[in-house]
Amino acid sequence: MMLFGLDDIEPLAVGSAVLGSGGGGNPYVGALLLRSSMEAKGLNKISVTPFDQIDESDFLICSAGMGSPAIGIEKLATYTDHLRAFRGLESYVGRKATLVSPIEIGGINSLVPLVVASQTGLPVADGDGEGRAFPELQMTTLTGYGLSASPVCLAEERGNTLIINGISDIWVERIARAATVTFGGRAYVAIYPLEGRDYLRGAIPNSLSHAVNIGRSLLEGIQHKNAEDALVESCDAKLIFVGKVVDVKRYNTRGFAVGYTKVEGLDGYAHDIMKVSFQNEYLLAETGGARGERRRAAVTPDIISIHDMETLLPITTDSLRYGQRCKVFSIPVSRKWEFPGADELVGLKAFKLE
Amino acid sequence: MMLFGLDDIEPLAVGSAVLGSGGGGNPYVGALLLRSSMEAKGLNKISVTPFDQIDESDFLICSAGMGSPAIGIEKLATYTDHLRAFRGLESYVGRKATLVSPIEIGGINSLVPLVVASQTGLPVADGDGEGRAFPELQMTTLTGYGLSASPVCLAEERGNTLIINGISDIWVERIARAATVTFGGRAYVAIYPLEGRDYLRGAIPNSLSHAVNIGRSLLEGIQHKNAEDALVESCDAKLIFVGKVVDVKRYNTRGFAVGYTKVEGLDGYAHDIMKVSFQNEYLLAETGGARGERRRAAVTPDIISIHDMETLLPITTDSLRYGQRCKVFSIPVSRKWEFPGADELVGLKAFKLE
Repeated sequence: MMLFGLDDIEPLAVGSAVLGSGGGGNPYVGALLLRSSMEAKGLNKISVTPFDQIDESDFLICSAGMGSPAIGIEKLATYTDHLRAFRGLESYVGRKATLVSPIEIGGINSLVPLVVASQTGLPVADGDGEGRAFPELQMTTLTGYGLSASPVCLAEERGNTLIINGISDIWVERIARAATVTFGGRAYVAIYPLEGRDYLRGAIPNSLSHAVNIGRSLLEGIQHKNAEDALVESCDAKLIFVGKVVDVKRYNTRGFAVGYTKVEGLDGYAHDIMKVSFQNEYLLAETGGARGERRRAAVTPDIISIHDMETLLPITTDSLRYGQRCKVFSIPVSRKWEFPGADELVGLKAFKLE
Repeated sequence: MMLFGLDDIEPLAVGSAVLGSGGGGNPYVGALLLRSSMEAKGLNKISVTPFDQIDESDFLICSAGMGSPAIGIEKLATYTDHLRAFRGLESYVGRKATLVSPIEIGGINSLVPLVVASQTGLPVADGDGEGRAFPELQMTTLTGYGLSASPVCLAEERGNTLIINGISDIWVERIARAATVTFGGRAYVAIYPLEGRDYLRGAIPNSLSHAVNIGRSLLEGIQHKNAEDALVESCDAKLIFVGKVVDVKRYNTRGFAVGYTKVEGLDGYAHDIMKVSFQNEYLLAETGGARGERRRAAVTPDIISIHDMETLLPITTDSLRYGQRCKVFSIPVSRKWEFPGADELVGLKAFKLE
């Protein structure tokens, strides 16, 4: 059993924003939410169960927010929203969870399970279903390894709740997304109720502690003026572009924040332009274009992370704006994504970016 | 206990189309569905419980199809679709229904509870929640008298199911409608799980047998060449226009068939035009317009029924077409609708037709 303390909140928020490929919701909103939840419960620590200590007989439920991260800044979640979804699913399946798990590592969504843990007293699993963030519910290794997202409980700020039993996880996504749009763009899910043995087979190990380590390295690096080295070492990040944001197109559509940013090259990248396309998360980074042949610099499922040039803190898709000077990195995704069919699930094809 | 036989199917379908104000789905589709369900179960009769024999301790569930009736002709329901919603709700509330009830009298939706009855062996209540048909789930006297539509089970052709717990019946409608659109425009609901004592307070009495009587009178009247008199006598119908359909605008939008028809006057109505606006159901009939002052001839919640001039059979909103010669009637709705707030729930305001 590991302990997650108040001092780990900021590192987790920052590390999750790195692994989140720009999505999963705004990390600072998540950090505030978790801090207030722990304080309300008078907690200094939350128990985290290392992946190899998860028991085959454990019963896990994943907890997350869904919808456009850009709307997530306006419609702030409360801990009761997430708790309502979690308790709603427990009550529907008639079984109490023994562990809460993140569905993804990214922005707010790796902090949300700790919020639920602080409210319920349950430990959090050191694992997740993506090892990064993806915009759609079925885009997980759990689905990839044949596990089912259903039944799912969806809650929202007013108190409406929904139980979804989908014939496939894509149908769960379609139904939940339509409801999320009806709710105004944000909802809270309890999803993938799983036996420990199934979770161990489909989930990505140690991803929560990995995010904390990356965040801590980066924050320490920032203090010691070697942030870029710290980032590169902690997650095998590779610098792929340096420049200035000259265009941001972002539409809240179909329950997602969809668009792209254009970054005009600086320093060694002068006279080049990088276009980064996103659907909640950065998915495709291309250079060239008008003035030359377009080349892919990074492609989903690998992680694309855009960092402020001065602070080297990550810039999520909801906080992109004109004039930001930035460095763009690609980070390899967990090898658990190397299975037949992964490309259909989370490759360019899945996002109609092919 | 009354018995509903195979010979009652056509009268119920026709009578429901009259009371349905043009909506509630196509009655002939409903009749085919019920006949095939009874035949599959080898049934000649289905038990109907008279309203005054419903017990305070009975447990009722309403069964219906939802979505655009125009799509209901293309996506034909099977009895298993309705049954799946019904069993899903029973299972969620952990209680077996003792009676099935229509939510509305109209087209397919007054036949659907008999389909569920034939599949489950349950009797059908001789009552409903509208005494006619309305396009939205919350537009019932049940909601009007303070009863709750939740929890609701929604099923659809592929096998996806949904449980909705709404904070209000308007929210149930919004969520269910968004899901129905996601499913392609048609879904099947089990809704308003109610104690007998509550149902007796909020439901409209004897409406199922009333529909059968209207249908039988009209069919006999057609045989004896006095169909119009038979219609007028059986339901207090009042002729408000005679003419030819010269325009039909019908859009499948937001999960509804929305539009209007224009009828050019004939005989005593020559030189006048009637415009009938609908959202699944006919809601507002106006005469005049371009050539004179516009006058309201019939207004929701009163029933508007358009009948073929030759056969005097009702023409539902999904079967309107250019060139039909028709007679338009208004029929008074059940007095159970006379309560404060009814106008906000089902008046012109509720349909943005004010």
